[in-house]
Amino acid sequence: IAKEVAKLLEMKAQLGADEGKHKFVLKTPKGTRDFGPKEMAIRERAFKAIISCFKRHGAEVIDTPVFELKETLTGKYGEDSKLIYDLQDQGGELLSLRYDLTVPFARYLAMNKITNIKRYHIAKVYRRDNPAMTRGRYREFYQCDFDIAGQFDPMIPDAECLKIVHEILSDLQLGDFVIKVNDRRILDGMFAVCGVPDSKFRTICSSVDKLDKVPWEEVRSEMVAEKGLSPEAADLIGEYVQLHGGLDLIERLLQDPKLSQNKVAKEGLGDMKLLFEYLTLFGITGKISFDLSLARGLDYYTGVIFEAVLLQQENEHVEEPLSVGSVAGGGRYDGLVGMFDPKGRKVPCVGVSIGIERIFSILEQRLEASEEKIRTTETQVLVASAQKKLLEERLKLISELWDAGIKAEMLYKKNPKLLNQLQYCEDTGIPLVAIVGEQELKDGVVKLRIVATREEVNVPRESLVEEIRIRTSQC
Amino acid sequence: IAKEVAKLLEMKAQLGADEGKHKFVLKTPKGTRDFGPKEMAIRERAFKAIISCFKRHGAEVIDTPVFELKETLTGKYGEDSKLIYDLQDQGGELLSLRYDLTVPFARYLAMNKITNIKRYHIAKVYRRDNPAMTRGRYREFYQCDFDIAGQFDPMIPDAECLKIVHEILSDLQLGDFVIKVNDRRILDGMFAVCGVPDSKFRTICSSVDKLDKVPWEEVRSEMVAEKGLSPEAADLIGEYVQLHGGLDLIERLLQDPKLSQNKVAKEGLGDMKLLFEYLTLFGITGKISFDLSLARGLDYYTGVIFEAVLLQQENEHVEEPLSVGSVAGGGRYDGLVGMFDPKGRKVPCVGVSIGIERIFSILEQRLEASEEKIRTTETQVLVASAQKKLLEERLKLISELWDAGIKAEMLYKKNPKLLNQLQYCEDTGIPLVAIVGEQELKDGVVKLRIVATREEVNVPRESLVEEIRIRTSQC
Repeated sequence: IAKEVAKLLEMKAQLGADEGKHKFVLKTPKGTRDFGPKEMAIRERAFKAIISCFKRHGAEVIDTPVFELKETLTGKYGEDSKLIYDLQDQGGELLSLRYDLTVPFARYLAMNKITNIKRYHIAKVYRRDNPAMTRGRYREFYQCDFDIAGQFDPMIPDAECLKIVHEILSDLQLGDFVIKVNDRRILDGMFAVCGVPDSKFRTICSSVDKLDKVPWEEVRSEMVAEKGLSPEAADLIGEYVQLHGGLDLIERLLQDPKLSQNKVAKEGLGDMKLLFEYLTLFGITGKISFDLSLARGLDYYTGVIFEAVLLQQENEHVEEPLSVGSVAGGGRYDGLVGMFDPKGRKVPCVGVSIGIERIFSILEQRLEASEEKIRTTETQVLVASAQKKLLEERLKLISELWDAGIKAEMLYKKNPKLLNQLQYCEDTGIPLVAIVGEQELKDGVVKLRIVATREEVNVPRESLVEEIRIRTSQC
Repeated sequence: IAKEVAKLLEMKAQLGADEGKHKFVLKTPKGTRDFGPKEMAIRERAFKAIISCFKRHGAEVIDTPVFELKETLTGKYGEDSKLIYDLQDQGGELLSLRYDLTVPFARYLAMNKITNIKRYHIAKVYRRDNPAMTRGRYREFYQCDFDIAGQFDPMIPDAECLKIVHEILSDLQLGDFVIKVNDRRILDGMFAVCGVPDSKFRTICSSVDKLDKVPWEEVRSEMVAEKGLSPEAADLIGEYVQLHGGLDLIERLLQDPKLSQNKVAKEGLGDMKLLFEYLTLFGITGKISFDLSLARGLDYYTGVIFEAVLLQQENEHVEEPLSVGSVAGGGRYDGLVGMFDPKGRKVPCVGVSIGIERIFSILEQRLEASEEKIRTTETQVLVASAQKKLLEERLKLISELWDAGIKAEMLYKKNPKLLNQLQYCEDTGIPLVAIVGEQELKDGVVKLRIVATREEVNVPRESLVEEIRIRTSQC
């Protein structure tokens, strides 16, 4: 009986919850956010800079579905696979939200037997991460990816990807930055000469990847205690991952008695040297650092890897670490497309992903600090009336303007006060007001008011469109 | 024992499936598709027309997450709720993919206490429909929404929404179209005077909504047999839903002995008359049809509703029905925001959604028929070389061009043949080739070749950027 009563009470409680509409939580899902008009204006500025760079480099654009068959994503992300969002099985296919744009791109290439493409893709990806939202990390976020697929001469497309990162970060004026570069082959060679067993390469790589967030001591203890690496091997790795530099370091490592004996490491170092030569021709080596601690989390990289981090401005006296986080990353993944091809045919790929959310956060903060007023519409003219009973005339005029391609608004009131109409222009930054009144209608003119100067001129109705165009051509 | 053997065999079969990578199905989820570069070029043309119309009408832009709390979507879509995609409960919130952009918009308004906004939102929505993909229906598809929220004088924003549909469909040149208009209040009044019980209004409305796809006899039998409506009421409805026309029909119904006695119907008809007056001022009544059979499926509409359908071209001799499907729809939903507000405060809204997928299909078909070659990149110039060993020079020149904002490509080969480089331009529509050679380097010039005419001119290196700009300014 007690059980039955408990059950009934539970049912009652549930009913109560259903009825109590006020208990409804009004929010977006954890780790997501809305973008209001102001945020969107900032976001579109950033997108514009990124897209124009991608187009400057001759990229086409593609789009893929937001979800993929679950098995498409399986076995591509290593330890991060647990962060994938699955959809409920509703009696159909097992689906997951995309985790990045790279795996769907590889699936697209294999499915359409494309062996040669340079494309960009800007879309949202999903990770059930524990987001620290103040630092611009979310569960739903945009990625802006540029990739070059195809069999080409070594390091030419790789160098272009780094050039793109350099162009975008310079263009967005986010402050000083450095692009760290490494190569999975150098890492693998390093692991081998340090005595890491083959089977532990990927998991030790994941540990090294954490070095930008946690100190070496912690990473070392993870390697030894959790992953069963010998302390000696860990200490040898510790020596290498401290190294960073430029061409000089590459030359030194090519002479390194242990590394130079390792075939893959030597290959990686040779290509790294070639990469630096090309980057010198591009004039961007000043911002590039060959860094042996760079590992990148994802499983699918096979060659060059890189990551761009913003550096703390010297004049900002805050207690933050010197690097304030990654804003772009990428690398070469020559094996991924082959994983999808029924015959295992490989399509070598290299690409870069711009981490736009952190860039937004920075642009947002900067805009708030600057007190710059950002417009959220492009309206050129408000169609207004000075007297009552002129709604019909306003509708007629605004319709003419729309049909002529002029961006025009009016207040949705039958008899708005002129003052309210002018105030609306002040609030939203509309530069012109086209005022219809009894007298103007008789004279066949429209009174055009320039909001900034309060100047007013009568313009013949037939030349109004031209006049508005001229006066807003700088906008 | 037999049971155990069966179990083991099943396990073995599963293992086999896991191992057999080749059995992997290489596809996108049911009802979804990739957009390749060519499709994207078409899609971007359509988006451009739509966005420029929304901006012409002074709209701001917002974005919301692709998923919402499940309860946000609950109780908003009537019979269509079963089509919502749910995410797997992974120990957090219960989430669903958005079904449209209207409910997230209402949630956004309530959450941010916004009482006044004109915004557009272009994003993908998700419906587990059974898609007929040849006709442009998908489970993942874009919606392009424009909505006006706020307490305004009657029918002014409603008329603007119809003007927008008219502008977009005219601009895209999709052929002849008609915009059907009705009002939920007229429907409700009609149901009342026909003897439909209050409790059955919404479900009978859903039945009427099917009239564009199935004949009246079928709809009638659904009403009577499935939904328990009296045959007499159904027949009375059948009389009304045949009616369509313009101002004349509105006037006639305002005199209708039964309808004119019904308060809500009268209100709806009065507003419909006002709407037609405004549409007359906009000069678009030629494409508007007041149609009593228009019902719209969604629960949340409270006033004006509308739907634009393309009409069969007279010269297309195919056995299709006269109307080839809805390409835009919308209406007034004054109660939706109040459903989210803790105090039930209402924000009246009216909006329109452009059904872009069907528009894509039409534009795609048309392009295929026309044999117009659509460019998928904007590259202005290919940096090429006439001899071997000039990779470094090409890299230096292309870097200069990129830095000057010129859209430039090169082949990723150390020593590409000139013929292959020229062929690449032919294939991709690149209009110019900048050729570096030993002699040109000595002379401080670059040979600029115009692909279309095969004309070649030597341009001093320092004026190359300007020359390329001038020659591609029409592009």
